[in-house]
Amino acid sequence: MTAAVRLGANQYGKAEVRIVKVTRTTPVHEIEDLNVTSQLRGDFTATHLTGDNALVVATDTQKNTIYGLAREHGIGSPEDFLLLLGRHFTGSFDWVTGGRWAADAYSWERIAVGGAPHDHAFVRSGQDTRTAVLDWAEGPVMTSGLTDLVVLKSTGSEFHGFPRDRFTTLKEASDRILATAVTASWRYATTELDYNALYTAIRQILLETFATTHSLALQQTLYAMGAAVLEAHDAVAEISMSMPNKHHFLVDLAPFDLDNPGEIFFAADRPYGLIEATVERAV
Amino acid sequence: MTAAVRLGANQYGKAEVRIVKVTRTTPVHEIEDLNVTSQLRGDFTATHLTGDNALVVATDTQKNTIYGLAREHGIGSPEDFLLLLGRHFTGSFDWVTGGRWAADAYSWERIAVGGAPHDHAFVRSGQDTRTAVLDWAEGPVMTSGLTDLVVLKSTGSEFHGFPRDRFTTLKEASDRILATAVTASWRYATTELDYNALYTAIRQILLETFATTHSLALQQTLYAMGAAVLEAHDAVAEISMSMPNKHHFLVDLAPFDLDNPGEIFFAADRPYGLIEATVERAV
Amino acid sequence: MTAAVRLGANQYGKAEVRIVKVTRTTPVHEIEDLNVTSQLRGDFTATHLTGDNALVVATDTQKNTIYGLAREHGIGSPEDFLLLLGRHFTGSFDWVTGGRWAADAYSWERIAVGGAPHDHAFVRSGQDTRTAVLDWAEGPVMTSGLTDLVVLKSTGSEFHGFPRDRFTTLKEASDRILATAVTASWRYATTELDYNALYTAIRQILLETFATTHSLALQQTLYAMGAAVLEAHDAVAEISMSMPNKHHFLVDLAPFDLDNPGEIFFAADRPYGLIEATVERAV
Amino acid sequence: MTAAVRLGANQYGKAEVRIVKVTRTTPVHEIEDLNVTSQLRGDFTATHLTGDNALVVATDTQKNTIYGLAREHGIGSPEDFLLLLGRHFTGSFDWVTGGRWAADAYSWERIAVGGAPHDHAFVRSGQDTRTAVLDWAEGPVMTSGLTDLVVLKSTGSEFHGFPRDRFTTLKEASDRILATAVTASWRYATTELDYNALYTAIRQILLETFATTHSLALQQTLYAMGAAVLEAHDAVAEISMSMPNKHHFLVDLAPFDLDNPGEIFFAADRPYGLIEATVERAV
Repeated sequence: MTAAVRLGANQYGKAEVRIVKVTRTTPVHEIEDLNVTSQLRGDFTATHLTGDNALVVATDTQKNTIYGLAREHGIGSPEDFLLLLGRHFTGSFDWVTGGRWAADAYSWERIAVGGAPHDHAFVRSGQDTRTAVLDWAEGPVMTSGLTDLVVLKSTGSEFHGFPRDRFTTLKEASDRILATAVTASWRYATTELDYNALYTAIRQILLETFATTHSLALQQTLYAMGAAVLEAHDAVAEISMSMPNKHHFLVDLAPFDLDNPGEIFFAADRPYGLIEATVERAV
Repeated sequence: MTAAVRLGANQYGKAEVRIVKVTRTTPVHEIEDLNVTSQLRGDFTATHLTGDNALVVATDTQKNTIYGLAREHGIGSPEDFLLLLGRHFTGSFDWVTGGRWAADAYSWERIAVGGAPHDHAFVRSGQDTRTAVLDWAEGPVMTSGLTDLVVLKSTGSEFHGFPRDRFTTLKEASDRILATAVTASWRYATTELDYNALYTAIRQILLETFATTHSLALQQTLYAMGAAVLEAHDAVAEISMSMPNKHHFLVDLAPFDLDNPGEIFFAADRPYGLIEATVERAV
Repeated sequence: MTAAVRLGANQYGKAEVRIVKVTRTTPVHEIEDLNVTSQLRGDFTATHLTGDNALVVATDTQKNTIYGLAREHGIGSPEDFLLLLGRHFTGSFDWVTGGRWAADAYSWERIAVGGAPHDHAFVRSGQDTRTAVLDWAEGPVMTSGLTDLVVLKSTGSEFHGFPRDRFTTLKEASDRILATAVTASWRYATTELDYNALYTAIRQILLETFATTHSLALQQTLYAMGAAVLEAHDAVAEISMSMPNKHHFLVDLAPFDLDNPGEIFFAADRPYGLIEATVERAV
Repeated sequence: MTAAVRLGANQYGKAEVRIVKVTRTTPVHEIEDLNVTSQLRGDFTATHLTGDNALVVATDTQKNTIYGLAREHGIGSPEDFLLLLGRHFTGSFDWVTGGRWAADAYSWERIAVGGAPHDHAFVRSGQDTRTAVLDWAEGPVMTSGLTDLVVLKSTGSEFHGFPRDRFTTLKEASDRILATAVTASWRYATTELDYNALYTAIRQILLETFATTHSLALQQTLYAMGAAVLEAHDAVAEISMSMPNKHHFLVDLAPFDLDNPGEIFFAADRPYGLIEATVERAV
């Protein structure tokens, strides 16, 4: 005889609503390009147990709301737009007690024509994507970040001193390529912030710290990057990073009577190292 | 003046180690095809703060261990293999207190030649991937699952009775296509189990329940699927599901003087509904 | 002073129109699931040179036509549907002299409930996709095929006797895993054919020949597969195949005091061998 | 009785050899990052028909050659490196009469630290990938290009005057977003060229012409882009472009009592327009 079952944690909504907003108040247009997900939490037991949808704000309605509120209030920053959504849904429906709103933001730069930035023609720039997640349980908690920030150092990286057991064959390295694709997400301590300025500043700190840290381990580089963000920005409560070690193996050219003094590398796909950690404030 | 920072939660290892094991004890070969990730947790503060790697079991060593232990002990099931890895690492290094081990398993079936299954020739089957994650904090906790199980019902699905606000334009539907790609993960209450038999049985329950549930909402279908698993298998403590509502929109053919009695649909990519819930045992 | 420029070959249309058609004449539904591309060729110089669109059948119109004709005439097979499209566009617009129409077809099987196939619930099956391309220059030429048919033999494959130069380090192999993802496309000599029956038969020949050919080179396996198709089906004029050699490397376990008698393999991603050839009829 | 079959066109080799080359002659490092494919053509009938590999330069050998020649001769440009490979293989093996060599090149820029470019730390830049293909039949023919150059104009695009038939529902547009992901490949008339300089110049012409062309049809924009390249560079014999029309649909906000004067768009995935043409020199 099995025990009774019940509904646990749940959320639902519309995912990956692609919205492009053009600001054309002057001939110099601005564009904002987001991929928005809206999911609601609250009293949704009835639809799960009986299919009674009386409290189910349709996912289509959530999509429409994204477009409508963008027109009424603008976007400004991914984070501000998520707060707008969160406040709308928790404020409009008594039974919606929280939710999860997320946005990816894609970056564009103006096409240069004869050296001058064009008024209304743009080219996608960068490999990385800006991310934002508003998690609303007791109240709004904003976590911003980025993903796919691909960086590489051609020197200034070592790895040695690790323990050796029966399965250890790795040689120690005093000079290797260090390459990774940074995924980082930092939780803000408050919600009234200049999110765009913070994003630009934090991305730059991550890049500069990666570049200037002489690395004895990818863990050390990761920690230095996170610590630098926390030290520079009080508004950041903690930062989590996931960094694959994208291995670049020195090719053995000796069979061809060639040396290889750190010049020719094979960039491997899988497997890869995977280093993940949170850097937080000491209490 | 900013507060001091410190290392929070962290784990590291080797991700996506692709291993194919052939069992050739008889001319009728068996193959096992896994994508394995190993990550360790424990006392790894030194490498983060100073780059001292004295306690860092190299990710390359973790990869070698996967291959070596597969040869020594076999695989058997993804879950049993993850337990083998978890016990090895927590048992071999005092400072490794836990970790996360995960595997995706790909399914193959024998090629039929003249109607008979071939001894050693195989074709990849199915769209879905079997998954397993061993999370080891206090002790081993096994969560099995699947992803990308793409299913569709051409009738037997309704959606109506939802609230209407300013942003609601969706029409009520009394007969629609219901399609989704099921991601499910179920946590087992214990670890000494016949994982392969359980996987086969649970996958079949998910399929049959999807097929036979007359759906008033995707939430209702999801809950029914999870409840059916819990009711059939005491070994399952809870099950979480994430199911996109892969919209199939009836095409308006009226401008071409054609009707469309539930026959011609446009399969949309984005946005999509996203329904997520856990079904658990009542205490 | 540069020479004058002019428009060369060109075609345009709507790509990846996702259409799902449900046949519900009885309670036992059938579904057809296609991804259709329509591109027109003909007298389209004006739009390129001056933006005069008087002859430009809008890509949106091409999309609508796909949906409308599917309702009026059904699909039947991907190939028959492409012929329907090709005849419509070349027959409806004097200046459309030809084009390219293509379809990918996705396979579904009925969910088994208590061992019996369900009337209207389906699960996506197989890794491979059926393809069809109608190229219309002088007249309609149909090429059918498949892609991503992933197959593996755990023995029955050798590779030796190849020349050795300064850059050759590969060891000869008398027993290796042979794995590939078959992409094949076969051109039919005529267009009035039972395409669904031919597709099923040819796919099976490809599978069986892969399985039963003792391979001395992937080239040999490829040729045998193509020749078998031509020998069995007069309707096929030629067949082209592209087959990556998905390397499975035997892992060296000797450093761990373990042997590895063809049991433990590393499945590599890149680089991979790439074998491409056409098998045709001798004139 | 079916006719005899024979081997038709064929080529084989190693695909996607990932090579990263670091030039470290000074502390200011340079990196080159390529994905190289090498395929040989010639007298390879024996391996296809009998599995006799006496003439089969192993794909593993081709991979090794890529690494070895990069060390001996450097890379310089993707095109120069492909010519090095083509000359090596056709010159080293009598029976290799030609082949296909291709490279994708990924762009990196130096990380700015305090505003100054770092000596040896880099970040991946841009969405687009540079491509090069050396096709060697009678002799070497070089085709260079790019892919995934994603561009958007927020105004300066119209589409009207197209014919209307039974299936036409599209409204005429006097001001729309025009967005595409350019794939272009231009064939050079000769092979002794400054490929890096040409690539930079041609990419810029494509961007500027997209930006400054007032568009009445994507066809017109495509033609203008191609013609501009041919007019500026005698070394280019012809250019082919494939440009999806990445539709941005104006969202209908009227049901929410909101206007939408070209501000809020839904960026669609599929289907998409697909415009393809070659611009060539008049003879």
